[in-house]
Amino acid sequence: MPSNAKPFALSSRARRTRRQPISGLMAQAVENPDVISLAAGLVDDATLPTAEAADLLAGILGDAAAGRAALQYGTTEGLLPLREALLDHLAALDGWDLAATAFTPGDVVVGTGSQQLLFILGDLLVDPGDLVVASWPSYFVYTGTLEALGAEVRCVDMDAGGMVPEALEDLFARLDAAGDLPRVKVVYLVSYHQNPTGITLAAERRERVLEIVRRTGRDHRILVVEDAAYRELTFEGEPPPSLKTYDLQNRDVALLATFSKTFAPGVKVGYGLLPRDLVEPVVLAKGNHDFGSANLCQHLVRRALASGAYGRHVERLRRRYAEKRDAMLEALEEHLGGLGPAVHWTRPAGGLYVFLTLPEGVETHADGRLFARAVEEGVLYVPGEYCYAPDPTRDVPQNAIRLSYGVCEVARIREGVAALGRAVRHVLENP
Amino acid sequence: MPSNAKPFALSSRARRTRRQPISGLMAQAVENPDVISLAAGLVDDATLPTAEAADLLAGILGDAAAGRAALQYGTTEGLLPLREALLDHLAALDGWDLAATAFTPGDVVVGTGSQQLLFILGDLLVDPGDLVVASWPSYFVYTGTLEALGAEVRCVDMDAGGMVPEALEDLFARLDAAGDLPRVKVVYLVSYHQNPTGITLAAERRERVLEIVRRTGRDHRILVVEDAAYRELTFEGEPPPSLKTYDLQNRDVALLATFSKTFAPGVKVGYGLLPRDLVEPVVLAKGNHDFGSANLCQHLVRRALASGAYGRHVERLRRRYAEKRDAMLEALEEHLGGLGPAVHWTRPAGGLYVFLTLPEGVETHADGRLFARAVEEGVLYVPGEYCYAPDPTRDVPQNAIRLSYGVCEVARIREGVAALGRAVRHVLENP
Repeated sequence: MPSNAKPFALSSRARRTRRQPISGLMAQAVENPDVISLAAGLVDDATLPTAEAADLLAGILGDAAAGRAALQYGTTEGLLPLREALLDHLAALDGWDLAATAFTPGDVVVGTGSQQLLFILGDLLVDPGDLVVASWPSYFVYTGTLEALGAEVRCVDMDAGGMVPEALEDLFARLDAAGDLPRVKVVYLVSYHQNPTGITLAAERRERVLEIVRRTGRDHRILVVEDAAYRELTFEGEPPPSLKTYDLQNRDVALLATFSKTFAPGVKVGYGLLPRDLVEPVVLAKGNHDFGSANLCQHLVRRALASGAYGRHVERLRRRYAEKRDAMLEALEEHLGGLGPAVHWTRPAGGLYVFLTLPEGVETHADGRLFARAVEEGVLYVPGEYCYAPDPTRDVPQNAIRLSYGVCEVARIREGVAALGRAVRHVLENP
Repeated sequence: MPSNAKPFALSSRARRTRRQPISGLMAQAVENPDVISLAAGLVDDATLPTAEAADLLAGILGDAAAGRAALQYGTTEGLLPLREALLDHLAALDGWDLAATAFTPGDVVVGTGSQQLLFILGDLLVDPGDLVVASWPSYFVYTGTLEALGAEVRCVDMDAGGMVPEALEDLFARLDAAGDLPRVKVVYLVSYHQNPTGITLAAERRERVLEIVRRTGRDHRILVVEDAAYRELTFEGEPPPSLKTYDLQNRDVALLATFSKTFAPGVKVGYGLLPRDLVEPVVLAKGNHDFGSANLCQHLVRRALASGAYGRHVERLRRRYAEKRDAMLEALEEHLGGLGPAVHWTRPAGGLYVFLTLPEGVETHADGRLFARAVEEGVLYVPGEYCYAPDPTRDVPQNAIRLSYGVCEVARIREGVAALGRAVRHVLENP
């Protein structure tokens, strides 16, 4: 048999790794540049801090010692002064007195975005067939990760206050009855302005969720992965304390955050404050992945934090995204407001997303009538079905939509929602 | 049982992922800053292109559109204009007429260093218990990757011309006789100025090695991973064509390269020209790992290539490393030259490493007399035993040393080798 005729024999992991449905959507957006994309979760191009980054980088590279340090190899766990600054930053956000916690900069690991830490934590804890608990719905990129890891997923209902603690307790009771608790390894939550719903886990639920998880693990701890990617984009009210605030002994919660949403995705710097005994496994795994994320970008983020440029930038972002959120909510009211109680949507206090529910029977998927009509009217959305991790015990709702106000200008947001309103009305009126 | 008393239950992969012995050495170097390190594989600090990087980044960020593009999300596979430039760059190095090859920019994937692609390719092809073939000795970071993947390793002897084709053929014949060929997934080679030996695979062996691999796979193709990290640091003679040059139909060889050695490790940009049918699996896996390496760094490397700054920098590097290589070889001759035929070393035509062999019985490991004496004399080296992937059919030589002339100035290289010479003589004279 000639070499050309033989396939490569892919590993079991590779065979589980699938193309994400969202990639088809992204291709569609590229092919239809005139269509308004309320689908993309990118950040607002106009907000990207080019001048600030230019200044900060000129400062680093204009100093021979600092410049060389930034262009040389870094360490696998990340730049120590950055990790120190990150811990201080987290402490300031949550009002921790660090001396009263177990946290040290050694518990902070820098990743290529927070996604890399999400992946590595999963890879460290999940063998194929192990169970991961997520909310319903949940962040879809993580869904792909869970599939690749061979995790079985169980999801927990959310309401306007986020994951429902009683539902989590019920799930654990059922898993316990079935003898499945030993397989539960991770509980995953986007704790602020969740992707895709924009919902924040209510303050009063946080300690409770953690307490439920803590007493559930039998012979092993279950890791709570708190994905706080959108926390600093809170533009209404005070964000509640992180789940990590109820884990000051640093045992149960991996708090993940990123500069992708609040500074620049192009620097791809994320970080995790990790339970002490997971730091070494994470660093060893990262050693095999890449032995360290781009050091230059870490030096840039460090300067952005130290100079105050980061703080000022986040302030500007909050104002801008608040306007855009307002525009989207107003437009939804205007264009989908009169369609009855079965048409409703979330009202995020931060982040980039609104989750819209349509009457049952209105199918939002990419091969359906509504999607086609929406594209015709000039708008792209993310079908809600992409946002449900594959829990074999549940049926995926077909009537939801994720909208993002991240990328578009206010006027385009209004236009896009108007187009969506026309498409929805058309489908409702022509069942 | 309180939460505090319970461990996390690590996955089988995490349990296979071990601390690399080199990390102890690095800690030792930090603790002994006055000791001359001929151990570190870092690049020469003084060569790092701070001024060039400053200019290029100012150019990118000074232009609003270019700056925003660099700070926004990129794509998982990497910046298309960079991937086009990388393919042109490879074609220029090898003299390919691209129109006569199957290669397209779509076959090039950017990674967080080439290490990320090494890891992902392994993860895609290797299930625990599968076989990977490497040379003896081999690059030690990859050894950690193989352990984490659960690969079984078989190694092939090298001589001054690199991996010995007949030895590879013999190995495959033995594996075939044992029914083990179906488990062979990858053959890994550092094809130029190998880490740790500095040896280049001889031109006349390249097609032969590839031909042996091609006819060996029975029902599946075996991937040849050609790690060309040091190729452009050739300072003596013309480097031979890449193995990839014998795979213009793009079926069997993944050619990996990086800007870490030739531009700046801190940008952590590596890339692979991958067999067509591995591109999608690699990109899907990378989607789960990080959905794209730092975009800003990719824009920087693209400008460095396009502006000619990269080419000029590599020229300077070659001259500088050539001087340092000469200094090391002269010092070795001076300080270890009279010790008989059992003391010998490689003479690299490029790269950063010299591999020194001592008489059998002289143990070079980090807990041994020679190592301790060397530190006392003021020099650190990498024990050769770290550079042998764990082939259970072989005994690891205990009498070798990897030396690097990458980091130190010429005078320090001479001093370091002199110190090593004193340590070796001491141990030889006091057996």
